[in-house]
Amino acid sequence: MTLPTCSYSTTIRVMLDDPKAVGRVATAVGDAGGEVTALDMVEPGRKDVVVDLTCNAIDADHAQALVKMIDSLPGVKVRSASDRTLLLHLGGKLAVAPKVPLKTRDDLSMAYTPGVARVCMAIANDPSVAHNLTIKRNTVAVVSDGSAVLGLGNIGPLAAMPVMEGKAILFKRFADVDAWPICLATQDTDEIVRTVQAIAPGFGAINLEDIAAPRCFEVEDRLKELLDIPVFHDDQHGTSVVVLAALTNALKVVNKSLKNVRIAIVGAGAAGVAIAKLLLAQGSGDIVVVDRKGIVSADRDDLDPSKMWLAKNTNSASLRGGLKEATQGADVLIGVSGPNIVAGEDLARMASDSIVFALANPDPEVDVATARRYAAVVATGRSDEPNQINNVLAFPGIFRGALDSGAKSITSEMELAASQAIASVITEDELTADYIIPSVFNPQVVPAVANAVKEAASTGK
Amino acid sequence: MTLPTCSYSTTIRVMLDDPKAVGRVATAVGDAGGEVTALDMVEPGRKDVVVDLTCNAIDADHAQALVKMIDSLPGVKVRSASDRTLLLHLGGKLAVAPKVPLKTRDDLSMAYTPGVARVCMAIANDPSVAHNLTIKRNTVAVVSDGSAVLGLGNIGPLAAMPVMEGKAILFKRFADVDAWPICLATQDTDEIVRTVQAIAPGFGAINLEDIAAPRCFEVEDRLKELLDIPVFHDDQHGTSVVVLAALTNALKVVNKSLKNVRIAIVGAGAAGVAIAKLLLAQGSGDIVVVDRKGIVSADRDDLDPSKMWLAKNTNSASLRGGLKEATQGADVLIGVSGPNIVAGEDLARMASDSIVFALANPDPEVDVATARRYAAVVATGRSDEPNQINNVLAFPGIFRGALDSGAKSITSEMELAASQAIASVITEDELTADYIIPSVFNPQVVPAVANAVKEAASTGK
Repeated sequence: MTLPTCSYSTTIRVMLDDPKAVGRVATAVGDAGGEVTALDMVEPGRKDVVVDLTCNAIDADHAQALVKMIDSLPGVKVRSASDRTLLLHLGGKLAVAPKVPLKTRDDLSMAYTPGVARVCMAIANDPSVAHNLTIKRNTVAVVSDGSAVLGLGNIGPLAAMPVMEGKAILFKRFADVDAWPICLATQDTDEIVRTVQAIAPGFGAINLEDIAAPRCFEVEDRLKELLDIPVFHDDQHGTSVVVLAALTNALKVVNKSLKNVRIAIVGAGAAGVAIAKLLLAQGSGDIVVVDRKGIVSADRDDLDPSKMWLAKNTNSASLRGGLKEATQGADVLIGVSGPNIVAGEDLARMASDSIVFALANPDPEVDVATARRYAAVVATGRSDEPNQINNVLAFPGIFRGALDSGAKSITSEMELAASQAIASVITEDELTADYIIPSVFNPQVVPAVANAVKEAASTGK
Repeated sequence: MTLPTCSYSTTIRVMLDDPKAVGRVATAVGDAGGEVTALDMVEPGRKDVVVDLTCNAIDADHAQALVKMIDSLPGVKVRSASDRTLLLHLGGKLAVAPKVPLKTRDDLSMAYTPGVARVCMAIANDPSVAHNLTIKRNTVAVVSDGSAVLGLGNIGPLAAMPVMEGKAILFKRFADVDAWPICLATQDTDEIVRTVQAIAPGFGAINLEDIAAPRCFEVEDRLKELLDIPVFHDDQHGTSVVVLAALTNALKVVNKSLKNVRIAIVGAGAAGVAIAKLLLAQGSGDIVVVDRKGIVSADRDDLDPSKMWLAKNTNSASLRGGLKEATQGADVLIGVSGPNIVAGEDLARMASDSIVFALANPDPEVDVATARRYAAVVATGRSDEPNQINNVLAFPGIFRGALDSGAKSITSEMELAASQAIASVITEDELTADYIIPSVFNPQVVPAVANAVKEAASTGK
């Protein structure tokens, strides 16, 4: 059963013809599956009373139904209803903060003209000092073309802004990185590459976000080639780093080793391809990837270059077929596709002590209760279940480490190090089937990841 | 005589073999033309004493000479010298500040997934709500290709960053606008236009900065055509707005009218062209523009499109020649060119009660003392002289007004309104030859400009 959440919280202003009706309204909301979280008397009157009632709903439709229900109660009238999530986003979620004072004429002369000219000339004479004398060393561009935003699909650059702003504040909150959202009015690979290349001088790294596969692969590869700063597509590498961390710990719980397990990956988009690559880099021996048309294998003639790579480097047993064949005897299932694609019978077919990561968001590939019936360890992308696989565990620390080390790229060695750092935040004592991955609020995560990445960067030089 | 300024302030760590030598060092700095602004005892010892001495110099060479001089004093040794301006710019001058809390899981659910999805869909369904639900409505991209940075010339995008960062913090400080620096790794007109067009969705306006003429004209014209947000090249329009404001008040001081005066503009770059256009729009009847090759007139065959426009729309008396012919009998001289181009004899040729704006920075077209000998009103770009013509008086309020009004462009009507707003901050009672333009710190300026621009925007609709 889905519970009401603050994501669907509404503040409803109601007028009551009788102060005693307040309790009646609250009870009715509870009876209708809502959760009252606040009640504020706005205008206490002799006769009419105005109250702000804030309540959580299950989803948008439910929130609307609650408003309608309240309005239909006798002696009660809804004046207005405000979606609290929309209110939170009013005016956007980030601002620019000057780091130097501008109070006096002297301040102006040093921060701007004429003093700034000397800073410019120092950089013109030796570009390497830009790292210290500009924001570059702590700044990341969060770049999206709006083509694959969350699970919402191709909603375009303007509608992608709230996500990219959110990403930017996560960067700041978790790793003190200054990130700025750049949403592109183009979905053409060449134009994306050219634009990012053109704006790169002022940034210390590029975080590609929510760009559809297979375009994302070419964009990333070409930018990595062109730029001397790290380029990182979070939907690929952030996800794969956290999945490997979770899998490392899950395998410990069931006492199996990565080298010997069979892994079925459901979904061959950005995340699926990156997960396969990182697991192979870590020594995985037996991976099968399934997309909409079945197991990715060399005899298919509908494969783009990224899937051709998969066909070449996975499915060593040369399996044919679909989900049924892929799950047969598999130890691990990693879903990075869409809601309700995997059934209980698929999980029943897996080996004993199986591990299921169902990461489609907000609705996983398989009902969580069903997964728990068959698998020894279950993880999802949801915050209301144990074992949340969340990129926030990876990207802040990875960028922190990359920026601090002055690395020119983020290598798979750095990603593997980040994975192990995340996994090792949980000690052997703490490790259980329901605690294979630390909370996003665990303060050890970011420093551990940043240090591991820095170390891997310096070793790789 | 040029005085020492904080722009060339150095903190010098000196070791003295005798505590009593402190006074001797300070005196020596004063004797050498420096200005001691601070003295901090760092390590008071029985014998050796370490002191941080901070002093202003006239320029970079002078600062270095002071350090050398101190080191050569008997019993004194310089341990290190830190340029305070460079120190101020360490790590850059701006950061990102989240506007929403991210302390709890509920905060995350509302600011990021899953709550943010509803904000995205609201925009996907109605793009106009992006104005309210993203940072777009308060955000400006400060875009430069690094081709004409201050008076430093073509120093490239990386070396331009300190200026663009400075511009961004001025935006915040003076008008609470969130501006982000975008320095481009291209100086090709097509590429600049394409890049700005591509990144435009996330910004509410574009401020073009320090792009060389004549490229800046085409870039601005094409972007204005392509984008539905304001595009404003500050070197042109910010300068012309402040010049017109200052000229409006200067003409009152000498009791002349814009319609009847002859104006000589020295310099036909971005600023010169824009000033001519705005003065014409305000009703000026007699403008002559002089560039490196002489008076811009229709019979010249070396004119780019912007100068051809000038040839067509100025010089109604069909003058030929150079600075000499242009200044003969002129009431106003506006220099937007380079240092020391105008001599006393040029000013002697002007009409009585002449007005001279010598705006080349940091060294004006004509020595200020010389200008004062001939002209009734003198203005420069310098902060250490009266009547500083500074773009900071214009662009913050103009963008504030444009963003708040939701204007799709900044028209010349809005620019004229901004000029009059700046001019009118000084009352008739206050107006003198040495006070024709308000201080950049006058708190009335930005609101007056913003309101005037908003009003002009709504009238123009």
